[in-house]
Amino acid sequence: MRTSIATVSLSGPLSEKLTAVATAGFDGVEIFENDLLGSPLSPEEVRLRCADLGLSIDLYQPFRDFEAVPADTLARNLRRAERKFAVMERLGADLLLVCSSVAPESVDDDALAAEQLRLLADRAADHGIRIAYEALAWGRHVSTYDHAWRIVEQADHPALGTCLDSFHILSRGSDPKGIADIPGEKIFFLQLADAPLMAMDVLQWSRHYRCFPGQGGFDLAPLVAATVAAGYQGPLSLEVFNDVFRQAGAASTAVDALRSLLLLEESAGLSVLPAASAPSGFAFAELTAADTEPLRGVLDALGFAHTARHTWKPVELWEQGDARILLNTGVSGRRQDPALTAIGVETPEPDRAARRAEAVLAPVVPRRRAQLDAPLDAVAAPDGTEIFFCRTEQADHISWTGDFTELPSRALPKERVEQGERGEPSAAAIRRIDHIALTQPWHQFDEASLFHRGVLGLEADGSLDLADPYGLVRSRAVASPDGGVRIVLNIAPAPDADGPRLQHIALATDDIVGAARRILASGASLLPISANYYDDLEARHDLEPERLATLAELGILYDRDENGEFLHCYTATVGRVFFELVQRTGGYRGYGAQNAAVRLAAQHLHQQGV
Amino acid sequence: MRTSIATVSLSGPLSEKLTAVATAGFDGVEIFENDLLGSPLSPEEVRLRCADLGLSIDLYQPFRDFEAVPADTLARNLRRAERKFAVMERLGADLLLVCSSVAPESVDDDALAAEQLRLLADRAADHGIRIAYEALAWGRHVSTYDHAWRIVEQADHPALGTCLDSFHILSRGSDPKGIADIPGEKIFFLQLADAPLMAMDVLQWSRHYRCFPGQGGFDLAPLVAATVAAGYQGPLSLEVFNDVFRQAGAASTAVDALRSLLLLEESAGLSVLPAASAPSGFAFAELTAADTEPLRGVLDALGFAHTARHTWKPVELWEQGDARILLNTGVSGRRQDPALTAIGVETPEPDRAARRAEAVLAPVVPRRRAQLDAPLDAVAAPDGTEIFFCRTEQADHISWTGDFTELPSRALPKERVEQGERGEPSAAAIRRIDHIALTQPWHQFDEASLFHRGVLGLEADGSLDLADPYGLVRSRAVASPDGGVRIVLNIAPAPDADGPRLQHIALATDDIVGAARRILASGASLLPISANYYDDLEARHDLEPERLATLAELGILYDRDENGEFLHCYTATVGRVFFELVQRTGGYRGYGAQNAAVRLAAQHLHQQGV
Repeated sequence: MRTSIATVSLSGPLSEKLTAVATAGFDGVEIFENDLLGSPLSPEEVRLRCADLGLSIDLYQPFRDFEAVPADTLARNLRRAERKFAVMERLGADLLLVCSSVAPESVDDDALAAEQLRLLADRAADHGIRIAYEALAWGRHVSTYDHAWRIVEQADHPALGTCLDSFHILSRGSDPKGIADIPGEKIFFLQLADAPLMAMDVLQWSRHYRCFPGQGGFDLAPLVAATVAAGYQGPLSLEVFNDVFRQAGAASTAVDALRSLLLLEESAGLSVLPAASAPSGFAFAELTAADTEPLRGVLDALGFAHTARHTWKPVELWEQGDARILLNTGVSGRRQDPALTAIGVETPEPDRAARRAEAVLAPVVPRRRAQLDAPLDAVAAPDGTEIFFCRTEQADHISWTGDFTELPSRALPKERVEQGERGEPSAAAIRRIDHIALTQPWHQFDEASLFHRGVLGLEADGSLDLADPYGLVRSRAVASPDGGVRIVLNIAPAPDADGPRLQHIALATDDIVGAARRILASGASLLPISANYYDDLEARHDLEPERLATLAELGILYDRDENGEFLHCYTATVGRVFFELVQRTGGYRGYGAQNAAVRLAAQHLHQQGV
Repeated sequence: MRTSIATVSLSGPLSEKLTAVATAGFDGVEIFENDLLGSPLSPEEVRLRCADLGLSIDLYQPFRDFEAVPADTLARNLRRAERKFAVMERLGADLLLVCSSVAPESVDDDALAAEQLRLLADRAADHGIRIAYEALAWGRHVSTYDHAWRIVEQADHPALGTCLDSFHILSRGSDPKGIADIPGEKIFFLQLADAPLMAMDVLQWSRHYRCFPGQGGFDLAPLVAATVAAGYQGPLSLEVFNDVFRQAGAASTAVDALRSLLLLEESAGLSVLPAASAPSGFAFAELTAADTEPLRGVLDALGFAHTARHTWKPVELWEQGDARILLNTGVSGRRQDPALTAIGVETPEPDRAARRAEAVLAPVVPRRRAQLDAPLDAVAAPDGTEIFFCRTEQADHISWTGDFTELPSRALPKERVEQGERGEPSAAAIRRIDHIALTQPWHQFDEASLFHRGVLGLEADGSLDLADPYGLVRSRAVASPDGGVRIVLNIAPAPDADGPRLQHIALATDDIVGAARRILASGASLLPISANYYDDLEARHDLEPERLATLAELGILYDRDENGEFLHCYTATVGRVFFELVQRTGGYRGYGAQNAAVRLAAQHLHQQGV
């Protein structure tokens, strides 16, 4: 279907919004009146600009407080409308959004509302303009879509139809099934917005917290499907009032917006994209640094072995169990401090995954590879992390490991680490990457979550607030259904803080106590945790005194839920990166959120050298 | 009364919080458990630290989900409590806050709750500890203060009392009058927090939006008065969960917090401070710059005359009518760009105003003056702007103008400007400073508003959201009752934006059209406003075509309300500063908020050179 977006959804002056909308690939725009009023472009110039950019102007909006008013007010309102019709003719826009009135002087009289709207439609028709009447969720007398439709039906004018808005419908808990009762040709427009489920004043909710489809808690697909089934022929148009999007860059927000529509079309059964299939695990995590020496030290202490090197790039492969870390010294540009720059995920069909990613507008990473390089498909996540679709050492696909040459010494360090007394892998060895945590730019939290769901096929948990000593960290995990890939997305508390956006790699072991002792024995240190935490742990959980003493000795944090236990501890931070060791037992699926405040406090103290 | 504050109200690690609390001048603290758990200090060390700082530990909190549970849970909860009693003994804290349960397994049985709380109090008494039972507004079965008191009464144990919390009481709309029915000695603690009036889930409201007394919408004074009248002997203690305070500096937040308590004590009739009396007008506004040449050009175009110079500082006085601008080139430190650094306000009794400011912890500005200098009393507002209490050329007080020497040329430029054809002041002259607008650091909006009310005796309007192209600007005006002094406090939209914090001086005239023409005639420019704005103005208001054309020609914005009209236009921005010309007719009291989006868009375009 055709796609459109209201200019109010993006930041900046009108001309920049239009460019961003066209560049992202939308077919049209809704011109939000305030954007025109603040623009130095005349309506004719806006019309030309849109034509040059290949954008249709699908709607001019909003026109407020028109209907069900006394005669003298009606006369003033019709005069006001005529002025707007004149602007619309200059713009070349032929559809005007009229919101249900919130004016105190409007009366609760459907017949009067219908009569006055018929009059308005008649005037509009003289200018070749049509009127789309929409129920605001907080309209004074008309606040539901079926009520707005009854008035439109009663008015019975060819230039008068209704506008459906998913926020106004779903925020009131209305059932979208009733849309099927509206003739498709009388649905003049469909505006789409999602929103997190919140118990708050609906006007404030609408004005500040709307988000793009799939980023909130509403189920938009049935609403869209019902509207299309009713015979709606217009565009799918986004209208999102959001405090964050108002500040973020228009270009990236527009891409994010169009992606949300493409995914919504897919889930509503209106389009078919290359199917998503969740990755089964991490192929690798890549750390980049000008000087990798400190990272090598940590990896060595963690028991990793340097097993191979890239045939022609300055990249080392370090391995332990199924955990693979790449150390890349090919730093280009400003990134100097060690940083996590790429993730490889094990994907059943890498080619299809890449096609899907491209179809939903994931930025494809330019392939800087030589002839010999394995065909690695990669896209950039919103925070810039590169995601590679991999199939590691399977017969049906070329493996990225083919680009690496094994080191002759490979067997030695691995044995030292992985084998216990009887030559079997020690339980204290690292098994694999458990999860990866990435701090997101503060304005891309919702975008990142939708990206990982829509592009990678991961599922999102709810959002949590974690108490950092200097503010709340918003956190949300996305994971494959079996937990093979888990990514934790965090938003740092202070948006004006210039501090590094921390990232960490959590490594799974079956014996965290043994693993921690091994790290300490190697001379490396673990993050010290306050003794007060263990007093509290003892009060909350009836742990054996000996076990508690061991946890306290090693700085291991503890959590449990109805399914199992979670134990975790942390290395020091190198550049922007640190490592976590985790041991899960039973079916524990979380990330130890209960302990986050204590861990964050400890990390702040550690970095201050206390 | 004694003052206290919960450590959760401030940012940073526990040791820094304690220092900030003591430095601000509080008598005690509530130790919030998570702050202790994240601290490397042992309970004994915290006890010592508090003793060194002269702080009492008034409360340890919170203990959750204790009462009205099955027997096995009770046993576990008592075990948990014993561990906390042990921590409290090490801390030297003798009062534990127990919140009403939210646990699903708790039952709605007051007798059982009372019985189990009696048991808890009995155990506590063995350690010399008392229990303060508080109703959470979202408690599962107990959510009102009178219900919590009935259970405490029923339990009838000397070590069991109730804790009152203004947020939990007022957020539910409970009437604090009932507090009079509780014996004072059974009110073990009083926690105070304000909050903006919001229609939202009460738990979210409480966790994120609490603020200090006087910064929100609750009427705390009657609640405090009722509690003290009932015989309450404990401290007034602040417990504020606020996303912004969690990020702001602990030291300044602690001062802000104590100021709010001092003002609350005053309004509850518990203390007497030097009385506030609202200033009657602006004595001057002081602009500081390394190079004042661009400012001189603007002032000259506005019709100001350089009338005097400071006897020994590099400060010029520019005058027009009652508007006085000081240009200061004595720049110390980093401020290079022109900036508004000080405001003088006409105050009936400057000495008393200064005593009041000091009494409510306004930072006194060090007097860098020589022998001859007039006794100017000044304090620093939260954004750093210096506020001088003045009495300009009145017989009963030394005037700051005494430090200035009139220039011989004084009469000439004034005449040119102020006199019309018949030698009378032209209506197009500037009369006085209408208002001053200051962009606040993003985390000091509520603090600034309370400062200007509590220190200067101004009254605050409601908070507005203004749409800037790059985000919403929060705006709130504080003004004297007669409008003689008006200050607009704004919060820039993007907290991570490094842009300058704009300030502006609005100048009142009786003939804005004449004033604008004079400025243009002098060769200076005014901010151009989009023609689309005037199309819309015509649609909204039935202005005469000629008048509309004049407004459009000069870039004058227009608003009106039921009392009168407001016309305003803007100069270009110099450094961080620009000027606004305003003409008010009738009783219009606002600031043209309706036009803010268009003006902000125009300023962005102008600064980008479009």
